Amino acid sequence: MANSKYEYVRAFEQSDVLLPNTWIVVRIDGRGFKRFTSKYGFRKPNDDRGIGLMNAAAKEVMKELQDLIVGYGVSDEYSFVFHKDCTLFERRASKLTTTIVSIFTAYYVQLWSTYFPQTPLSTPLPSFDGRAVMYPSVGNLRDYLSWRQVDCHINNLYNTAFWAQIQQGGIDPVKAEEELMGTSAADKNEILFSRFGVNYNNEPEVYRKGSVTFRECELTALPSDTSSSVVLDTTEHSAASDLSSIPTPSTSQARPSYGDDQGVLPPAPLSKTAAEKDRKRRAKARIVVEHLDIIKDDFWTQRPWILTGRAGKPVTER
Amino acid sequence: MANSKYEYVRAFEQSDVLLPNTWIVVRIDGRGFKRFTSKYGFRKPNDDRGIGLMNAAAKEVMKELQDLIVGYGVSDEYSFVFHKDCTLFERRASKLTTTIVSIFTAYYVQLWSTYFPQTPLSTPLPSFDGRAVMYPSVGNLRDYLSWRQVDCHINNLYNTAFWAQIQQGGIDPVKAEEELMGTSAADKNEILFSRFGVNYNNEPEVYRKGSVTFRECELTALPSDTSSSVVLDTTEHSAASDLSSIPTPSTSQARPSYGDDQGVLPPAPLSKTAAEKDRKRRAKARIVVEHLDIIKDDFWTQRPWILTGRAGKPVTER
Amino acid sequence: MANSKYEYVRAFEQSDVLLPNTWIVVRIDGRGFKRFTSKYGFRKPNDDRGIGLMNAAAKEVMKELQDLIVGYGVSDEYSFVFHKDCTLFERRASKLTTTIVSIFTAYYVQLWSTYFPQTPLSTPLPSFDGRAVMYPSVGNLRDYLSWRQVDCHINNLYNTAFWAQIQQGGIDPVKAEEELMGTSAADKNEILFSRFGVNYNNEPEVYRKGSVTFRECELTALPSDTSSSVVLDTTEHSAASDLSSIPTPSTSQARPSYGDDQGVLPPAPLSKTAAEKDRKRRAKARIVVEHLDIIKDDFWTQRPWILTGRAGKPVTER
Amino acid sequence: MANSKYEYVRAFEQSDVLLPNTWIVVRIDGRGFKRFTSKYGFRKPNDDRGIGLMNAAAKEVMKELQDLIVGYGVSDEYSFVFHKDCTLFERRASKLTTTIVSIFTAYYVQLWSTYFPQTPLSTPLPSFDGRAVMYPSVGNLRDYLSWRQVDCHINNLYNTAFWAQIQQGGIDPVKAEEELMGTSAADKNEILFSRFGVNYNNEPEVYRKGSVTFRECELTALPSDTSSSVVLDTTEHSAASDLSSIPTPSTSQARPSYGDDQGVLPPAPLSKTAAEKDRKRRAKARIVVEHLDIIKDDFWTQRPWILTGRAGKPVTER
Repeated sequence: MANSKYEYVRAFEQSDVLLPNTWIVVRIDGRGFKRFTSKYGFRKPNDDRGIGLMNAAAKEVMKELQDLIVGYGVSDEYSFVFHKDCTLFERRASKLTTTIVSIFTAYYVQLWSTYFPQTPLSTPLPSFDGRAVMYPSVGNLRDYLSWRQVDCHINNLYNTAFWAQIQQGGIDPVKAEEELMGTSAADKNEILFSRFGVNYNNEPEVYRKGSVTFRECELTALPSDTSSSVVLDTTEHSAASDLSSIPTPSTSQARPSYGDDQGVLPPAPLSKTAAEKDRKRRAKARIVVEHLDIIKDDFWTQRPWILTGRAGKPVTER
Repeated sequence: MANSKYEYVRAFEQSDVLLPNTWIVVRIDGRGFKRFTSKYGFRKPNDDRGIGLMNAAAKEVMKELQDLIVGYGVSDEYSFVFHKDCTLFERRASKLTTTIVSIFTAYYVQLWSTYFPQTPLSTPLPSFDGRAVMYPSVGNLRDYLSWRQVDCHINNLYNTAFWAQIQQGGIDPVKAEEELMGTSAADKNEILFSRFGVNYNNEPEVYRKGSVTFRECELTALPSDTSSSVVLDTTEHSAASDLSSIPTPSTSQARPSYGDDQGVLPPAPLSKTAAEKDRKRRAKARIVVEHLDIIKDDFWTQRPWILTGRAGKPVTER
Repeated sequence: MANSKYEYVRAFEQSDVLLPNTWIVVRIDGRGFKRFTSKYGFRKPNDDRGIGLMNAAAKEVMKELQDLIVGYGVSDEYSFVFHKDCTLFERRASKLTTTIVSIFTAYYVQLWSTYFPQTPLSTPLPSFDGRAVMYPSVGNLRDYLSWRQVDCHINNLYNTAFWAQIQQGGIDPVKAEEELMGTSAADKNEILFSRFGVNYNNEPEVYRKGSVTFRECELTALPSDTSSSVVLDTTEHSAASDLSSIPTPSTSQARPSYGDDQGVLPPAPLSKTAAEKDRKRRAKARIVVEHLDIIKDDFWTQRPWILTGRAGKPVTER
Repeated sequence: MANSKYEYVRAFEQSDVLLPNTWIVVRIDGRGFKRFTSKYGFRKPNDDRGIGLMNAAAKEVMKELQDLIVGYGVSDEYSFVFHKDCTLFERRASKLTTTIVSIFTAYYVQLWSTYFPQTPLSTPLPSFDGRAVMYPSVGNLRDYLSWRQVDCHINNLYNTAFWAQIQQGGIDPVKAEEELMGTSAADKNEILFSRFGVNYNNEPEVYRKGSVTFRECELTALPSDTSSSVVLDTTEHSAASDLSSIPTPSTSQARPSYGDDQGVLPPAPLSKTAAEKDRKRRAKARIVVEHLDIIKDDFWTQRPWILTGRAGKPVTER
């Protein structure tokens, strides 16, 4: 029996395919987490259990979606990055965002009791929303991640100074806010050091830098120039090389008069065997969470597989 | 300390605001539920525990998002409908879809042990994806819901016949599929009745009709013509009457020569007091799950508050 | 010889299909017409030659695009309306807007010498930009057109009073603007009448109402209730009935238990013969330009074929 | 008098802003040009008057829209490229496409009599449609243009062989088509040479390569590494440097611990004076139409100002 009578309603679904050859960032945020963290007594300014739970959920998202190349989390938000060549779900924005949000939420709820064994969840449960943003160049993508990490730094310095005044200084929140109004970063460092003996630079990196999640690979067989490419973006032109919808170039391009266009066309895509090998490497690679500076070049040049999207030899789970 | 250096990356976020005055349907689907239900031993063709869990999660979504007017669920999918006047999250598609998916997932995971006490969840956890579709008219919206309910009917009749052959007839799945190939609905009814003594029309309504979720109100003070409007759509022109971004019409429209345009302009929006009262009524109304025909007019004419979006006197939780 | 090597770039074209069952308004505006009209000495506050040229170009657009049901023009802008069932160019926004803008521009330039025989065009030539907006209900569509016509009224009353002071009162523009600052419509009427003996209501309708373009049909065989539908929008539910991409409902809908859904589903689409006859009627109908009130119901109830999208017996060109 | 009563309809306009930092190609196509060229007796396979008219119209488009960096035309189509940093019309797709289509159409109609003095235009007038496509990298953009130029080559070789058979060989179109069916480029070259004495490589470049339109500048003060960048795309990371909506970085970025991120952030934007000087240079630069290979690197490396978007010393109109 057909269902044709009403099926015309499918024509109302509109395309939300993201532009090819752009880096896709899906950022998720906790809904109403100010109230949520207060209800469950999260420690201020940072709660290690809460951070641990966020990172645990993020790792599971990275595990399930192997197209993700890196994640960055701070406070109640987490950003996940799909490689610009990613074709998962045909790059449909709604599928990419809802899938990430759903997996993340599932693990956040399921793993809650591991991190907060004393305080069972009650209604309303924690939940997250999300959105996808496209970045055309590696520079834009890195600037996005830098934006989030600078934000982490700004907020954490402020929060550290704010809560030190309350928790160690014994003043009330209104007074603490007034004290910080209009202060520079140097002022806040000074307040922390002179009044509370806190050297901000000795605070744990997880608080100051946030958390970076990525696959761990070994640096072995990469071509010598690859490391520079992630900085200088010279591979930007290798556009859309893996787009599944793009027909493989025929081998005999009978264009005698048009000459050499090396450097413009996408490089030869991976052979089927190589792609499969690459996929397996990614699947095997251990996913780690670290607290590193992702603004400077070092993070990226030392891990070229993240932006090339080609797995090196994986460091497997131990 | 400002974060302006990288903040330009915000300019890459693109608008995904849905068209005003359209009904918004967010449909979510279980990801890989064929494998998931098999792993956890869901009963075939229908598992009451699984259906109960879906409906429980859907009720919580309806409770948290009071802008939702009705939900419809079958198998591993659930459709949620926002009223055409809804302005939640400024109608941003990504916020609407991810929020629904996240709340649904959270409760699905949290309530799992209530419905499947013997089989704790393990990795990979259940998750859902979702998408938003706009429908400009009540007719389109009702046709969408009819489409889903007809699909429920078609699939359930097939599945009932398919699994009867295997579970009661003792034949294997390949053979069962062959038997049903090319059969009409009447044929399947006949197979069920003559071979297995099953009168399909006596099967539980929850299997044959799926589940409808909505707020329960009393029918008291509604104007006499309201019930017809949900069928005939005569209120369609009361466009965008509640759109928060729309300035309130000034009372003295000095347009002497343009005369009477009653019937075209949006009706006077609810006064602040009335809107607040309406909001409270919605919050108090009991959310029910029933298994009714939503294709025929009856369901809608008997519950005019669903499509008018104006709560009647609520039937509260007992 | 294939062109496959570069053809992957086609994958970057993104869908811009407009939502089905919505009225599509394409509004075009003259680019830099303040300077343009000054350069060519347009008369103030209204230039009959300029208005005539706009209307002539608009008529040609209506002639070439038979899916257009009505146009409304004032000053250097023109709005064109596609019926909600229109499937021209698969409803792609870019095709619809650029085609209208291009046809309009072509005739504006070509017919220029007919309306301005003394002043040949020189660089830069007149040009227009445009955009498409969707309106889900007849009420929204009529409110859009009312918005434009009220704007015409407001601007024309102002301009008439402004230029009367300069042309008849002999004062300079700065002084004229000051005089009108903060005045009501009644004030402006009074200024015109007491100072310059102008009864605004006797000004030509083309200035006060703008120009409406539509196909002229005879009122013969229309069903009795059709006229009310354009006001009350009772036909709103006849969703998407003509969408070419929608499969025709099969005649034997084996859904025995779901009963009567009349009034919800799209009405039977026109048969091929009827559709062809309708198309021919539209092609033959004379396109007229009038200066009527399109805010009140009369315009629409007297010409039901405009919003039903079904041509009556056409009044042909004489 | 306010117009607030109906103004809510503006809320239905949806954003169509194109993604920042992407190259924007607007391609326009003649509507129904097969019939049009036949009606006006265009010569086959190429009509110099028609090509001249297309190029004349394209030059005027380039003159009026100084944000355009290059155009490419063949047959009845023309592609115009906006620089990735372009902020014209806030990058709204509808404004960009309709403006180009309108200017082009205006000049095509106005200049018609210059190129076709014997055959005045009659209804229906020539018109064009258009669409915008974003390309994230220089490689994608160049591949797009290569795609069009290869298409030109393929079609022109075919058409040359096709019409030679008819015009010189005296056979009918059906037979001519049959002869070419399944032939390679070499076959077509051979047919032209052996049967009609035509050496395809001696055909005019305008037919074989199409037409490239761009601003002519002198190569003087450009930094030594600029020429390579247009090939290697090393400047890709200078994202969005000119986006008007992006706040100027504050000079004192108090981020002591995050170190050197040179090479990622956008370069310092041009100073106001420099930007103004650049604008003037662009305005003065002569716009030329040439028939060159734009697939190979040479065209781009010899004219670095095209892709850098920074004008060199202009070659002015003589």
